[in-house]
Amino acid sequence: MRIVYDVKEMQEIADKYRQWEKTIGFVPTMGYLHEGHLSLVRQAKKDNDVVFVSIFVNPAQFAPNEDLDKYPRDIKRDEELLKNENTDFLFYPTVDTMYPNNFQTYVSVENLTKVLEGASRPTHFRGVTTVVNKLFNITKPHRAYFGKKDAQQLIVIKRMAEDLNIDIEIIGMPIVREKDGLAMSSRNKYLNEKERKEAVCLYQSLNKAQELVDSGISDTNEIKSQMENVIKSYSIPKIDYININSLTTLKPLDRIKRKDTLISLAVFVGKTRLIDNLWI
Amino acid sequence: MRIVYDVKEMQEIADKYRQWEKTIGFVPTMGYLHEGHLSLVRQAKKDNDVVFVSIFVNPAQFAPNEDLDKYPRDIKRDEELLKNENTDFLFYPTVDTMYPNNFQTYVSVENLTKVLEGASRPTHFRGVTTVVNKLFNITKPHRAYFGKKDAQQLIVIKRMAEDLNIDIEIIGMPIVREKDGLAMSSRNKYLNEKERKEAVCLYQSLNKAQELVDSGISDTNEIKSQMENVIKSYSIPKIDYININSLTTLKPLDRIKRKDTLISLAVFVGKTRLIDNLWI
Repeated sequence: MRIVYDVKEMQEIADKYRQWEKTIGFVPTMGYLHEGHLSLVRQAKKDNDVVFVSIFVNPAQFAPNEDLDKYPRDIKRDEELLKNENTDFLFYPTVDTMYPNNFQTYVSVENLTKVLEGASRPTHFRGVTTVVNKLFNITKPHRAYFGKKDAQQLIVIKRMAEDLNIDIEIIGMPIVREKDGLAMSSRNKYLNEKERKEAVCLYQSLNKAQELVDSGISDTNEIKSQMENVIKSYSIPKIDYININSLTTLKPLDRIKRKDTLISLAVFVGKTRLIDNLWI
Repeated sequence: MRIVYDVKEMQEIADKYRQWEKTIGFVPTMGYLHEGHLSLVRQAKKDNDVVFVSIFVNPAQFAPNEDLDKYPRDIKRDEELLKNENTDFLFYPTVDTMYPNNFQTYVSVENLTKVLEGASRPTHFRGVTTVVNKLFNITKPHRAYFGKKDAQQLIVIKRMAEDLNIDIEIIGMPIVREKDGLAMSSRNKYLNEKERKEAVCLYQSLNKAQELVDSGISDTNEIKSQMENVIKSYSIPKIDYININSLTTLKPLDRIKRKDTLISLAVFVGKTRLIDNLWI
């Protein structure tokens, strides 16, 4: 695996592979990799001739009160994990490389970012779409892979790609879970032992939702209220939101719409904010 | 010359040329072509293996009170002019192709767009950077050509390309003028005979500025005031602004700075708003 720090160098490598008619798969990450990330790398390896992974903890997607500084980092471990997956190139730029002095250009998706995570974190998605746009221009992939755990992120990036005619296939991959069902996340590291146990409440509430949908219930208020009950049966977790929205517009739904429903929630487990979701 | 209406088709053509290691030069226009546009096409032919021109009157860069509907169009004439220059491909999309239902992604350059034309036309540059970003993703050029007449546009697009790591060389080309010095513009068509004669005041005031700079005067207030006098010696024109700014930051300058000064002005000649500028 070759590690690339420089933008021009990465672009020249991408140009070479494209001239050789090789397909490039790209997996953008913020590092501190877990099985969720690695499942994206594996799919990218399957689908493409060559795989680029990026590791960049992107300041533009953290608000001043958020966890940029304490966001977990372990580049040596990440390198080992990526080598084990036969990753071809790791793009690992500095903050100064990505945001030099006088940086002032942003990519914004409007309607889709005003709800859910965007409502709680108003500048978050502008940071995501801007850095992903930059990373696309740097790695020039044919396909890019994102986890469904960040459901709104995936939907927003698909919208950006379509609106800006970005010629890259955006691929969403299933959530990878711990044995007890907790969705894998770099932020799980923040949980103490008691919190870790109670963090399963997000998954349990989504299971309850699936059960209700399977039993034919489609009233979303009924489903949300029963999900709430599941979470309230735990002692630590505090609900930030539980929402049921259209997958395409992200507008709230009164009734479940098959193939077009996202059930999502954000929960504080102690000080740690966790998210999870279910695509119906 | 082949005319392409479809985004995917244009992208596939671009991919082919890139695989063949041919360089692509791109000239984005709003049509109603004049010698200014054609000078860009000629330079693109010189520098590249193949030349793509686009014609698209971009609604996103017009405010509701502006001249979108009456903006001059003559596609048959444009086609002839482009054929004469041996243009290889004309990309000529519809508004629905470029801005389908539910379109909601914008590219914005922040500081550089708050002054000069951006101050008079607050949503203008967001429309420009968004459509140029889209056109870059559609035509995938190695080099793109813009006239210096829209000086701020050129500076803003260079900033966008740098900030978003767009791997395209942005080339600014000299202003092309009528015999009496009026900068070529599709909007000159709006002028009646009397207005057309008086429209030369922009060029005359820039000549005066050049003269003053050459004679060693560097106080920008002095220069602006003498430019104003030139324009006031005409009966129709009304000044919108006369500004002297840094070429890199677009901040106003107290004194002329060699190689980093933009003298620019906007003047209403009757109902028609004309712009012109001088790079020192």
